[in-house]
Amino acid sequence: MVEDIVVFSLTSCKNLTAEIVKYLGVEEGKIEVKHFADGEILIEPGQSVRGKHVFIVQSTCSPVNENLMEVLIAADACKRASCKELTIVLPYFGYARQDRKAKPRQPITARLVADLLTVAGADRVVCIDLHATQIQGFFKIPTDNLTAMEMLGQYFRHKNLKDVVVVSPDHGGATRARKLADCLHDAPIAIVDKRRQQANVAEAMNLVGDVDGKDCIIVDDLVDTGGSLIGCIDILKEHGARKVYCAATHGVFSHNALERIAASDIEEFVITNTIEHPEERVKNTPNLKVLSVGFLLAKSIEAISNNKPISDVYNLFQ
Amino acid sequence: MVEDIVVFSLTSCKNLTAEIVKYLGVEEGKIEVKHFADGEILIEPGQSVRGKHVFIVQSTCSPVNENLMEVLIAADACKRASCKELTIVLPYFGYARQDRKAKPRQPITARLVADLLTVAGADRVVCIDLHATQIQGFFKIPTDNLTAMEMLGQYFRHKNLKDVVVVSPDHGGATRARKLADCLHDAPIAIVDKRRQQANVAEAMNLVGDVDGKDCIIVDDLVDTGGSLIGCIDILKEHGARKVYCAATHGVFSHNALERIAASDIEEFVITNTIEHPEERVKNTPNLKVLSVGFLLAKSIEAISNNKPISDVYNLFQ
Amino acid sequence: MVEDIVVFSLTSCKNLTAEIVKYLGVEEGKIEVKHFADGEILIEPGQSVRGKHVFIVQSTCSPVNENLMEVLIAADACKRASCKELTIVLPYFGYARQDRKAKPRQPITARLVADLLTVAGADRVVCIDLHATQIQGFFKIPTDNLTAMEMLGQYFRHKNLKDVVVVSPDHGGATRARKLADCLHDAPIAIVDKRRQQANVAEAMNLVGDVDGKDCIIVDDLVDTGGSLIGCIDILKEHGARKVYCAATHGVFSHNALERIAASDIEEFVITNTIEHPEERVKNTPNLKVLSVGFLLAKSIEAISNNKPISDVYNLFQ
Amino acid sequence: MVEDIVVFSLTSCKNLTAEIVKYLGVEEGKIEVKHFADGEILIEPGQSVRGKHVFIVQSTCSPVNENLMEVLIAADACKRASCKELTIVLPYFGYARQDRKAKPRQPITARLVADLLTVAGADRVVCIDLHATQIQGFFKIPTDNLTAMEMLGQYFRHKNLKDVVVVSPDHGGATRARKLADCLHDAPIAIVDKRRQQANVAEAMNLVGDVDGKDCIIVDDLVDTGGSLIGCIDILKEHGARKVYCAATHGVFSHNALERIAASDIEEFVITNTIEHPEERVKNTPNLKVLSVGFLLAKSIEAISNNKPISDVYNLFQ
Amino acid sequence: MVEDIVVFSLTSCKNLTAEIVKYLGVEEGKIEVKHFADGEILIEPGQSVRGKHVFIVQSTCSPVNENLMEVLIAADACKRASCKELTIVLPYFGYARQDRKAKPRQPITARLVADLLTVAGADRVVCIDLHATQIQGFFKIPTDNLTAMEMLGQYFRHKNLKDVVVVSPDHGGATRARKLADCLHDAPIAIVDKRRQQANVAEAMNLVGDVDGKDCIIVDDLVDTGGSLIGCIDILKEHGARKVYCAATHGVFSHNALERIAASDIEEFVITNTIEHPEERVKNTPNLKVLSVGFLLAKSIEAISNNKPISDVYNLFQ
Amino acid sequence: MVEDIVVFSLTSCKNLTAEIVKYLGVEEGKIEVKHFADGEILIEPGQSVRGKHVFIVQSTCSPVNENLMEVLIAADACKRASCKELTIVLPYFGYARQDRKAKPRQPITARLVADLLTVAGADRVVCIDLHATQIQGFFKIPTDNLTAMEMLGQYFRHKNLKDVVVVSPDHGGATRARKLADCLHDAPIAIVDKRRQQANVAEAMNLVGDVDGKDCIIVDDLVDTGGSLIGCIDILKEHGARKVYCAATHGVFSHNALERIAASDIEEFVITNTIEHPEERVKNTPNLKVLSVGFLLAKSIEAISNNKPISDVYNLFQ
Repeated sequence: MVEDIVVFSLTSCKNLTAEIVKYLGVEEGKIEVKHFADGEILIEPGQSVRGKHVFIVQSTCSPVNENLMEVLIAADACKRASCKELTIVLPYFGYARQDRKAKPRQPITARLVADLLTVAGADRVVCIDLHATQIQGFFKIPTDNLTAMEMLGQYFRHKNLKDVVVVSPDHGGATRARKLADCLHDAPIAIVDKRRQQANVAEAMNLVGDVDGKDCIIVDDLVDTGGSLIGCIDILKEHGARKVYCAATHGVFSHNALERIAASDIEEFVITNTIEHPEERVKNTPNLKVLSVGFLLAKSIEAISNNKPISDVYNLFQ
Repeated sequence: MVEDIVVFSLTSCKNLTAEIVKYLGVEEGKIEVKHFADGEILIEPGQSVRGKHVFIVQSTCSPVNENLMEVLIAADACKRASCKELTIVLPYFGYARQDRKAKPRQPITARLVADLLTVAGADRVVCIDLHATQIQGFFKIPTDNLTAMEMLGQYFRHKNLKDVVVVSPDHGGATRARKLADCLHDAPIAIVDKRRQQANVAEAMNLVGDVDGKDCIIVDDLVDTGGSLIGCIDILKEHGARKVYCAATHGVFSHNALERIAASDIEEFVITNTIEHPEERVKNTPNLKVLSVGFLLAKSIEAISNNKPISDVYNLFQ
Repeated sequence: MVEDIVVFSLTSCKNLTAEIVKYLGVEEGKIEVKHFADGEILIEPGQSVRGKHVFIVQSTCSPVNENLMEVLIAADACKRASCKELTIVLPYFGYARQDRKAKPRQPITARLVADLLTVAGADRVVCIDLHATQIQGFFKIPTDNLTAMEMLGQYFRHKNLKDVVVVSPDHGGATRARKLADCLHDAPIAIVDKRRQQANVAEAMNLVGDVDGKDCIIVDDLVDTGGSLIGCIDILKEHGARKVYCAATHGVFSHNALERIAASDIEEFVITNTIEHPEERVKNTPNLKVLSVGFLLAKSIEAISNNKPISDVYNLFQ
Repeated sequence: MVEDIVVFSLTSCKNLTAEIVKYLGVEEGKIEVKHFADGEILIEPGQSVRGKHVFIVQSTCSPVNENLMEVLIAADACKRASCKELTIVLPYFGYARQDRKAKPRQPITARLVADLLTVAGADRVVCIDLHATQIQGFFKIPTDNLTAMEMLGQYFRHKNLKDVVVVSPDHGGATRARKLADCLHDAPIAIVDKRRQQANVAEAMNLVGDVDGKDCIIVDDLVDTGGSLIGCIDILKEHGARKVYCAATHGVFSHNALERIAASDIEEFVITNTIEHPEERVKNTPNLKVLSVGFLLAKSIEAISNNKPISDVYNLFQ
Repeated sequence: MVEDIVVFSLTSCKNLTAEIVKYLGVEEGKIEVKHFADGEILIEPGQSVRGKHVFIVQSTCSPVNENLMEVLIAADACKRASCKELTIVLPYFGYARQDRKAKPRQPITARLVADLLTVAGADRVVCIDLHATQIQGFFKIPTDNLTAMEMLGQYFRHKNLKDVVVVSPDHGGATRARKLADCLHDAPIAIVDKRRQQANVAEAMNLVGDVDGKDCIIVDDLVDTGGSLIGCIDILKEHGARKVYCAATHGVFSHNALERIAASDIEEFVITNTIEHPEERVKNTPNLKVLSVGFLLAKSIEAISNNKPISDVYNLFQ
Repeated sequence: MVEDIVVFSLTSCKNLTAEIVKYLGVEEGKIEVKHFADGEILIEPGQSVRGKHVFIVQSTCSPVNENLMEVLIAADACKRASCKELTIVLPYFGYARQDRKAKPRQPITARLVADLLTVAGADRVVCIDLHATQIQGFFKIPTDNLTAMEMLGQYFRHKNLKDVVVVSPDHGGATRARKLADCLHDAPIAIVDKRRQQANVAEAMNLVGDVDGKDCIIVDDLVDTGGSLIGCIDILKEHGARKVYCAATHGVFSHNALERIAASDIEEFVITNTIEHPEERVKNTPNLKVLSVGFLLAKSIEAISNNKPISDVYNLFQ
């Protein structure tokens, strides 16, 4: 049971929030989000938040900047309306890939976003599978970085696949691949090894590890256009892979990513609903399986508002 | 002559910046602005800014949130690249109308934007005709709020209109109307007096002041959909006004505002180019006259980088 | 009923605070305010404030700087003494008129004061009829800007004046005039239109709107020396006004303002007690009517400490 | 020679600043300080400060709060007018005695003042003989705490007093007494030893050290009402002291302190002009000798603006 | 009774914390402190702190920097783990002697430490007998500076010494000497008067005050190497002192201080356990008497968590 | 040529700094670093830094906390002494591995350190091969993260090894392995794949990739005890590796790491001098090769102080 909390949904996570509040047994908070003709946004909580612990649920997925400004404005409104505590729940944290200066003079937009959320009034942030776990350190306020990896692992475990290899589509994902492999009876891993691109030279892609005659699960934190992922499938097939599965927490699915997935050799693509897509598009992608993070988030919100450790939440997925 | 400055243009003010750097006699700074498929923006200055005074020119007009994020990200990039000083030039400052809590639980988004710009790294802000002059106080950093009113006044003075009344389209604009009237040999003013709207009652609009047999200049800081402005024209005509001119600094022109202006009784609508519109649309609005703030901004940037008082810039418009 | 709060009065609002605590049913907090021979102030709370929500009631009226320093020092004392929350109640917010740079190199003292209060430890500010509503945005902390306009409107409504016009004494007050007029069965408004002063030219003052044969209520947020207000009366009389009433929230009444009011043609001058004046001086001004904001503030403090919406407080004045 | 600096004087140190700018060979900066009828202050620099290093000279002596607000408002004006650097010169730093919580729930006003100056925009502070040297640590910004002790020592050295004892009027001043004694060929020191005051018991005062047949110099950082100092003289005389001199940096001289000094047995009271008093009052105190800190401050300002070490300034007083 | 608090001990105060939690009737919080081979420290609270008021007990005594980093890292861990409030209890506050710039270009490390603790997440600090009471003002957060002087006074009062003089070993400690003397029926005080050291000249030390035929208690806030203290004893003996006692709150006891004390003429050296020393070393110093501040700290923690005034705690030592 | 800069060395990088200032053609700045008997540190710059750009060179290697406090205190001293700009050069950034919450309630000490450096006064930080590039985002101030990978690549390129594989000793290092491999004519990579450790089960280690009959270069950012690295060698040998080289930027070398390296099968261990070790110990490790980052740092400092892009520095290593 939770008390004195208000859970607001902005534009991006309407279904997810509906699920969360049902689990929590509370009514969803009333809040009006207006987008004016000139592009400005006005957000007005429709009920008093004085002395309440407010949770705002919003993924900063596409349209990223609209969704981000929504959450900043909503935060300002809640703080000025004297809420007691403000927790921003970002199932998907946009701009996470801009987490370092890869080249001179680049911004570190993920840190910028952390500062924007903080200056707007956030007291705590809840995320899921941040692109880099270091992003927690971009925040000075408490940050709970949940993970859907247990949930994905549990799903694949129930499939009872044999001779399975977990594949990271790039070097940076090796740790994540090992983490999922650990959930699958210590499966081996493999890594797709892209070389530095040179002018007028086709990108060289190699495979480190052995997939011959095995089922593969490519795992990543997010899938965007799906281009590089589908490139990986070819490599795996070339190296003798049997079936290829994909698993990711965040389905960004830009452009015609879903269409490409539907048309691909991917046996099953398992994602979560941190980013919502039109029901129609999902239906038209028969090899797409969507798991819900609603229960995970509801239990986490409950733990936070009741001052219980979030780590206990994970025992539910063992 | 200006030294050690770099002037960057982001997406919204390309023509205006081109004009500014021409006046300044410097080359426009190289900067790459990428909008990715998933809606994220990446901004990379294409030249070193170490030890330079950087000016970023960007109006936060439609698409407001895209343009705002561009300027925040660019600021982060420039600061991390060790620029010496960062001045954000916002010919049009979006969200300026959300400058107070008009109703309980409203955000004060204009203050929020001031904080966002500051936390992103701005050292100084240059604006033109802020919706409320108090917005200067939302910033802790130095803010130069330029005005195009002298420029508009000069334009109408050269028309040698007789029996002219300056009209404010609402109560809040009375001071602005008097300011323009002062530029026109102390013309009288009138105010359109809207009453509180009640449920199921048509909005009552009245006119305070006398316009019978006179030419009117409706003045405002910005024109958005144009709806309320065109409503004013009817009131003025009902009260015997002769010709009706309009003057505003910022032409937001949402929806079909330009089409409505073209189709209206407005003799001439004088705005500035703080917000750029497609040449085509402007051409199709024959009664629209666009003045440029390029010279004003160039002279102000010059004054700032040479540590000369900006107030001297205005003598150029007397 | 309110719990765990302490209400302190400093020097400026002793009677008002006495009224507030009576409404709240609590004892006034003990606090010692010493002004030493050298001009320094020492403030010592005379009771523990650990874990309490402290409300300090103080108008920053004349002597402005003494009163401001009192509240800053008291705030420091309460925070260092581990109060849980600190709300500063400023019935009159001094320096509010310095809310923008009207000329180059001016300070924005109202913003400065907001920063001083914040750095001294304020967690929330409660004000009444700020000179400009934008001043709310000068604060990052929650700010409740109450209004006495409903109270003034109610008072005049009970007079059942006929043919009444609400007059703004300057351009900036047009919105406020309309607001009061809305409380009076949608009365019309008029505006005194002062022109730019030129060297060696008497100030030109005009009237926009029609007052002929009507009763006028000049409304403003504050009255200082009363000079410009009394100038308005002449204009109104010249234009055929019948009786002239005045209404304002804050009676600064510098110099001999009260004497001038007593000697003037003003039928009745209605103010509130946000600024306290010696009983003697008030008695000697027979046409001065003082309404109390004590109930309004008590109900607001009650709402704040019980986490109820302040907006409900206003229903008491309909 | 100093360049690109502007030295402003506010109300309290007009003569001292005149002396400083003469030493520096610059013209005093133009600044208008208005005190309005209602007690508010408006401060407007009368010349551009863009890109300049501004020095504001102001003692926060009586009227303390007026003088403090003057310097805060002036700081805000200079920062908003884009000065490059702002150094506040506080020959006398008021509220310095409130530098700790001597009793529960007391404020630490000296720290508060440090925060107020910083939030108003100060980049550096220059003081003289702070009541406690620890107050430097109340500031995060660079603080130069000059001392007039060398100057006072030099003055007494030239008197060639024999058998001299330096006396601290209280326990806290023992270190200061030793410091002055060090300047006087290692003279011995004595300390007036006040006991804890108890209800209905006359304050017990004792003397630690030997003054019999010797000339005494009572030294303190500041003299306020002079009461406790004159009490010390009686004690010294009781213990056989010959002549009694007094030395202090800051002459607060509240109430009739100067009259009491004139009427006292004090041979000579040597202070500096960190606090200015009407020439008339000074003349009527024949045993008062005023040394000027003008040269010390001018040389320090010169060192600061030329990036030379301030410590070299003191060699001038050896 | 205290609720919802967690008391953690880091490395330096294990025995003291054990005593504190016993008085409080709570279990000591589980926390793991690892020092790795490369010198880095990792600190992991072993139990949930969500919504708890956490007290971390740690003296920043030798190894100072290890102990300081421990408390900073522990603070970071607790804040990120969403503790409700974080009070750092520093029985001994290291670096307190670096509280001012005694010479040009010195740091003010005590202020730096205050900032480090604050940026790491401290909400309140509890100390005992800070070297200078002004250090409270280095903190912006509430600081409770307890004192063991009453406890030391009580101890000596029970000895019923006759003809006792309290001696300060330097100028800066005169106030402290008077404070202890006040606890001993207004005993007289004396001060050891060290002169400025000159090159090639032995340090001159003198005594101000009379100790002939009397018992002396040298009092200081802390004793480090003991060198200067033992120097004082010689002076006192030279001036005819009978027995010499020492009293100090903090026993730093660097080098062979304890051995020197054991070998000295000191009748009894009374300190507290703000700094813990190996039992062995204490036993080998027969003239060392250690009083515990455990009860004082336990009662203070109780008062803080129950929102009762700490000042009442002292009545227990009258 | 560089002007108006001062380069200070603290305890950890004396040789490296000597090399840097020689390249720069400046004298090393005078600074005194005292470690007192009680463990406290005092740092006093021995020359004026007013208006200078100060560079402090210090690795926060073992003793980590001593070295960290040295740099924090030195920063405080320089800022209070009015240096113009303060760049902290941290060839080795300690605590970098604590860059995320790997388990509940862990601190993020790398972020804490970033905050400590910032609050102490750093204006810019220069590092080399941060453990995670995201740590740049822990800083709000500009951070230049240099890399020694080009230098290591150049060194191995000159060896003309054939059939070489670059090996990452763990999942997180795959990207770094690819980066070094790119410098070696696109060599292939392999990854040592450690499984999750379970109670009572020996750690399972596997190899992903092919090293049979090939020379291997194990690459990491830092080597601490060397234990896991030496474990990797066994795995590589088991899989048929020929010679094994090691490369790392930072040689932490805790415990007997150097002795183990000397006794191992490692052909050559190439590190840099970001951490200095006693000459004796280095000599006794015949297979250890130390490259100097002195030129890299000198050129970077030169670029920073002359406002030239640092990226140009790398062209020197192509």
